[in-house]
Formats: sequence, structure tokens, C-alpha cells
Amino acid sequence: MTPHVAAPDPQAGAAVKAADRAHVFHSWSAQGLIDPLAVAGAEGSYFWDYDGNRYLDFSSGLVYTNIGYQHPKVVAAIQEQAGKLATFAPAFAVDVRSEAARLIAERTPGDLDKIFFTNGGAEAVENAVRMARLHTGRHKVLSAFRSYHGATSTAINLTGDPRRWASDTGTAGVVRFWAPFLYRSPFYSENEQQECERALAHLEDTIAFEGPATIAAIILESVPGTAGIMTPPPGYLAGVREICDKYGIVFVLDEVMAGFGRTGKWFAADNFDVVPDLITFAKGVNSGYVPLGGVAINAEIAATFDKRPYPGGMTYSGHPLACAAAVATIQVMEDEKVVEHAAHIGENVLGPGLRELAERHPSVGDVRGLGVFWAIELVRDRETREPLVPYNAAGEAAAPMAAVGSTMKKNGLWPFINMNRVHAVPACNVSESEVKEGLAALDVALSVADEYTA
Amino acid sequence: MTPHVAAPDPQAGAAVKAADRAHVFHSWSAQGLIDPLAVAGAEGSYFWDYDGNRYLDFSSGLVYTNIGYQHPKVVAAIQEQAGKLATFAPAFAVDVRSEAARLIAERTPGDLDKIFFTNGGAEAVENAVRMARLHTGRHKVLSAFRSYHGATSTAINLTGDPRRWASDTGTAGVVRFWAPFLYRSPFYSENEQQECERALAHLEDTIAFEGPATIAAIILESVPGTAGIMTPPPGYLAGVREICDKYGIVFVLDEVMAGFGRTGKWFAADNFDVVPDLITFAKGVNSGYVPLGGVAINAEIAATFDKRPYPGGMTYSGHPLACAAAVATIQVMEDEKVVEHAAHIGENVLGPGLRELAERHPSVGDVRGLGVFWAIELVRDRETREPLVPYNAAGEAAAPMAAVGSTMKKNGLWPFINMNRVHAVPACNVSESEVKEGLAALDVALSVADEYTA
Repeated sequence: MTPHVAAPDPQAGAAVKAADRAHVFHSWSAQGLIDPLAVAGAEGSYFWDYDGNRYLDFSSGLVYTNIGYQHPKVVAAIQEQAGKLATFAPAFAVDVRSEAARLIAERTPGDLDKIFFTNGGAEAVENAVRMARLHTGRHKVLSAFRSYHGATSTAINLTGDPRRWASDTGTAGVVRFWAPFLYRSPFYSENEQQECERALAHLEDTIAFEGPATIAAIILESVPGTAGIMTPPPGYLAGVREICDKYGIVFVLDEVMAGFGRTGKWFAADNFDVVPDLITFAKGVNSGYVPLGGVAINAEIAATFDKRPYPGGMTYSGHPLACAAAVATIQVMEDEKVVEHAAHIGENVLGPGLRELAERHPSVGDVRGLGVFWAIELVRDRETREPLVPYNAAGEAAAPMAAVGSTMKKNGLWPFINMNRVHAVPACNVSESEVKEGLAALDVALSVADEYTA
Repeated sequence: MTPHVAAPDPQAGAAVKAADRAHVFHSWSAQGLIDPLAVAGAEGSYFWDYDGNRYLDFSSGLVYTNIGYQHPKVVAAIQEQAGKLATFAPAFAVDVRSEAARLIAERTPGDLDKIFFTNGGAEAVENAVRMARLHTGRHKVLSAFRSYHGATSTAINLTGDPRRWASDTGTAGVVRFWAPFLYRSPFYSENEQQECERALAHLEDTIAFEGPATIAAIILESVPGTAGIMTPPPGYLAGVREICDKYGIVFVLDEVMAGFGRTGKWFAADNFDVVPDLITFAKGVNSGYVPLGGVAINAEIAATFDKRPYPGGMTYSGHPLACAAAVATIQVMEDEKVVEHAAHIGENVLGPGLRELAERHPSVGDVRGLGVFWAIELVRDRETREPLVPYNAAGEAAAPMAAVGSTMKKNGLWPFINMNRVHAVPACNVSESEVKEGLAALDVALSVADEYTA
């Protein structure tokens, strides 16, 4: 695709930014210290600003525009639904709401065939936990350090990254454990099999000491996303499934980021032949063209709320415009073989390309991922594995990563950076030549990182 | 407006409903006991099913379609934005995001000029509480019984209705108090002035005994919605404002339902000349055509996060499609004088009409409201004020209200019913003749309620 770029119009850009700074309060930011780029347009894997700069988006927004920007078929579907029935209350049956649920249910593993729609991922997690607690009559939920599950009260409390700390104001019932991560093994493992065995033993020990009969659910990202794209070792998720069955615990897989093609499968769980009891989703379900999330529910948990009212809901549950975007997105992904393409890119272009960069750049400690879901972990020293910047670094301490990011931008590549990692997370339908363009820009930026190595 | 009705197509309706029952998990419902109406289309104040039935919507969906269904200018704005830039990540400045924030900030009272966008009302409340806690360094939040604030963990815990109970699983720091409600006075008051004074004394006593220095925020719906549309007595909200100032407590007004024209003002707080510190909004901001909510933040609280990162966010914050719908909705409301019209309908048509019904129907214990925001409280006995059905009644015990609702539907009027109340909450741009049509159908339904009176 030949990307469009609008004619530069710096004055318009300055006006947009001035209005933004006057009235928009931004997520996760010190409002007085940010300088948000004014974006003028986007198409496919690219976006551009008002100054004539074009960027290849290796972040997919926040890892959600799985079919890229402005896919004409999804745009048309939104326009058509807007003209037909933009919104309708959740208590009613609406054609496009039914159809979106059917298409999602057909793609979820196992018997997760009922879909509870939410506005986004955090609400999906909130409701999955509510379902698990009411289904089991138990209270505790186990979640992993190195995780992100959303920013509402329960979702942020389940989250294992520093963004939780400011909101640690008293949500009872969350117990955190360590999930497998061979590169920085919490269990001193030497290989993947050992890491898997030890992580499962740690989880089962934690359950034993917390009291199995107190635990409603275990929630895990199938492949943790923002926390570092730690693909679980073979057997780990199957082992968690067994543990859940043994103790009557609901197994929730959070696929808000990993679902809908990101890992080269419809759901990341499919890479591991595991069927959880609940799946939370958002983002890729409709590439975020309209806010949408949800919970896919298995038959047993759905049956709990057959005669007993489910005590949760929201005004926009199953929003017709959002559902129309989901129907069109899933059809596009099917017709254009986007999921298969993401797998191909991971196996044959992006994965090998990143590994090749790792060989040449001493700052690269680890490269891991699958599909279009990759992390490049930067270190000061490959032997000690000391991160290029400390955990949760800010300001001066984070300067090396800021330098890497600004070099990427200067070379037309928009980065996703978290702590000491660059994530390569382009759209699932990114082309081979776009990936190669991105790898070339990354090559330059990694030379900047190399300057900080021992 | 002459409402359209599609040609009946019962087979299509049956197919939509069958797909719904197979895969859609509905809010607040026992999934096996519901029979959702399949809706075929909607326009203005009306919607219709696949069997040739048309309904005048006196519920505005869930009290959110403030400009009615399918307003052509808002539909066109959504279609245009979809073709231009459907979505973009929250860290960027986007023209329509800036413009929506500006238009909202211009209409909020006082210096609430920074807008943090969310996906809906619950997330707005979650974030308002987070802001208040971090701004004050305190933990507790006071909220009222007879309230609804949303269904995520903190929002549902702040909620004073029975939908909270199943989710009372341990969110620390919420203290509930009694807000004024003269018809069922918690304070044995005999008039509005007394109710106001006693409610303020009760609130200040509660603060004194909880410890003023432990309280971050007081959250109130300016006019409580689903809980019963209890317009606060003159002076109450101003009194709460004074108490908040006295003790350094953040005053949050939840205007998710009452805002954007519902009460005949842009914000319900404007009826009482009160400026809170934070306002939560959703629903009417864009008539729910695209999911959107947010928090309007005053200068002092915004400044707290000037150099210190605000620790909250979400992927779809300031979603361009949702913001485009907000910009168009606010322009339509301005151009068509929708807010003024809502005030006129309340003062001259709906209010007087409901009071006239109350005179003739012994089942009507109380009629109260303003704008297009009215409650009809049904009782078995006007003297004892015994509700027509008990608090939180279900099944057989709720049969009288079910009979009222089904009579309304039979007469082409779609109801909003909560416990022993019928709410008359049409679109803000409902016509006088539509209101009269609704009042006539309500007249018939109230005769059914009368049969249960002593």
C-alpha cells in the first residue's frame, strides 16, 4: 500500500495541540510535562502529523489496530450501521449484536459460546472476576506479577506492574504469584522445561498455602503483553488448566492484547491447545475502531446465571456500532487471511529479522515473541543481564530508552517502549516490506542502545 | 416527525432473537428467564420491532438517547469521522478529541476545564475517585444510599441500590449516608427546608464521626436517577459544597444520567448554582451513539497531576469516533435549543401532565422531577405510602409493576420501571404531541396500578 501523507499544515497542527493542552487530560501522564504529537491522518500501518512526517506504526496504537488504520471495509460497515441503528439499549436483541457474538463464539476455543459485551478490556476483567466469584462462591483471585489487566479497581489491583501502586487503596482478595519467565527466572531455572515445572510447583504451593477452597479464579494473560511478551513455556498453561480442574478454580485467560490474530492464531490460547473457562477480550476484536470488549463464557459458568440474575452490566453492552465494526473486522481477517499472515510474518520475517539484529547488537539481551507480538529486551551487559534502565525508571534514569525511542521516531518508526524493552507490535496485516523498513530503523536505534553497554 | 416503521418480518425477528439467545449474555439478567424483544429500527423518539409494533420510547434506552435515535447530523458526523480517522491512541493530540473537550469544558460550571475521557460512566466514577484520593492523600469516599454510580468495583461499591450486594466483596473506604428525600424522609422532616437542614446535619455528623481528615470525596448524583429522581431541596447541594470546603473534601457530582440536557440545563448542577470539583459524565454527552464518558476536572485537581503522572488510563480514552459524535451532539443541542426545549417540556407539558394523572389515580403517591427527568412513585395507600411492591421485589411480589409495564407496552409506550416507580424519561427533544401520546398510554397503565390500591 502506498501511504498517503497530507500536505503539511503546521498551523493547523499547532491549533490542534493548543486545544489539546487547554482541555484534554491524558492517560498515565504528568499533564504539564507532555508534548503530544498532533496526528493528522492514518492509513494501514502508517500515520502522519501536520508537519509532513510519516511514521510506520510498530505500536499498533496501544497494540490494538490489528488490521491497521482505516480499513475500507470496516469503515464502510461503521458508516452503514451508523445510518441504520447507531445505538440501542442492551436488554434488546439486535441483529448485529447477535452476529458479532456468534462470530466471536465460533472462534473461541472449547465451549466458550456466550458473549458478555463490555466497553473495553478493564470492564471485561472486572466482569470475569465477578462471574468467577459468584460461580464458585469463593473470593480470592490469583494473578501474576509482570501483568497488566486494566485500570478499574479490581483490574488494576490484579495488575502486577508499577501502575498499580498508586491505586493500591484496598481491594481485598487478590493474591499475586510469579509466572514463568526463563530470561529472568524467578526459580533459577536453566531451561524451559525446568521453568515450566518450577512455575507450576510455585503456583500449586501458593494455592495450598492460600487455601484452595478460598480461590475463585486464576487470571493470566495467555502471552503477557505490556509486561514483556513472555511466551509461556510448553506445558505451562496446560498445567495451570490441570491445577484449576483439581481445585475447582475458574481459569481466566486475558486475551485483551494477545487475542484476535496478534500471536498468529485467533486466540493466543490456541498456540498452547488450552481451553480456559473465561476469556476476556477487547482491542483486536474490532481493531478498536469503536470501543468494545467482552467476556467469552463457557457453558458451565453461563448456566450459573440461567435462573439467577447476573449482577453486572452497563449502558453500552453490545453497542450496535461497536458490534458492526467487530463483524466487519472478523470478516476482513477471515477473507484476507490476516491471522495466517501474522503467523507467517512472525515465523519468516519479523522473528528472524529481530534475531539477526540481536546477533549484531550487544544491547539486545533477549528477543522473544510470536506472530506480530515481539519484545526486544535491552541490557547493559549480556552476561549479567542488567537492564538498560532500572525497573520503573523515570526521568534521567530512563534516558537511554528515551534516546532509543527518539532515534526510532527520527527514522520514521513509531515505537512501543516499556521499561527496558522495545516491543515490535505492528498490525497483523503489516507487509513484508513494511517490516523490513521497521527493522532497518530499529537497527539504527539499537546502535544508540549499544553505546550504553559495558 | 412521522415515525417510520419497517414492514413486518417476523421470520427475520425470530432469527435475530434465536442468535441472541444462542450467544449474547445480557446485563443484569437471568439468562434463561429473559425474552429480549428484537428491535428492527429506531428514529427520533420511536423504535419498532419485526412484528409491526412501534413504541414511543419513554426510557431513552437507559436514559441516554437525549437527542433521540438516529439524529441525521450526528449520524453524518460519525460517518465522516469514520472515513477520516476512526480511532487513534490516547497519547496523541487529535482535532476532534481537542474539540470535544473544548465544547464540554465550555459548558461545565466553574473552572472544570480539563476533560479526562473514558468509555462510559463507571470508568468516569472510578477515575474521579482515584483523582480525589491522590489529590487529598485521603482514602474514604462518602456516597448516598438510593444511588447508582456504575458496575466496576469501586463504582458498584459506591452504589446504594441492591445491585451492589452481590459485588460487596471487599472494596475498602466507602461510607454510605442518607441524602434528602422528603417523600420518604430518613429524618422525619415535614417540609423541604427541614429535610435540607436535617440532611446536611446528618452528613456533617457522619463526617465528624468518620473523621474529616480520612475523607477524600463526597460523591452524589446531582439529581439521583435510577434510584428515584429525588430532586434535592433548595440549598442542599450548596450546603454540601460548604461542608466540602470546610473539611478539604473533594465534591464529585455524578451527572452520567442527569447531565447534557436531561434536567433542562446543560448540567443538573446548574439548577442549583453549585460548582463541584469534579463532574462525571457519559450517556447524553453524545446520546450514546458511540460509547463515551469522562471526568471534568477543576483547575486545582488538574494541577495535582501537572508534574506528577496521573496513574490511570485506557486504550480508548478520547476515542475519535466517540468524540466526533460528542461534537455533533453538542452542536445539535445548541442549534436546536434542545436543552431549553427539555426545560419547556418539563415545566409546561410533562410535569403538568403527570400531576394531572396523579390527581386522578390513587396509586400515584408522588410525582417529582424536572426537564425530561420524572418519577411516578406508585403506592398501595397514599396515607401510609406503602410502595406498590416491596423494596427489591422480584417474581410474584413484583407482579403489580410488571402488569403496569406490560400495559404500557400494549399501548405502544416503552417504560422505564425501577421497583415501585415508573420513570418518564423521554428524549430531550421529544415533541409536545409525543409527550401527550405517552401520557395517554400512561393513563391506561395507571388504572391497572389503581386496582392494587387499598
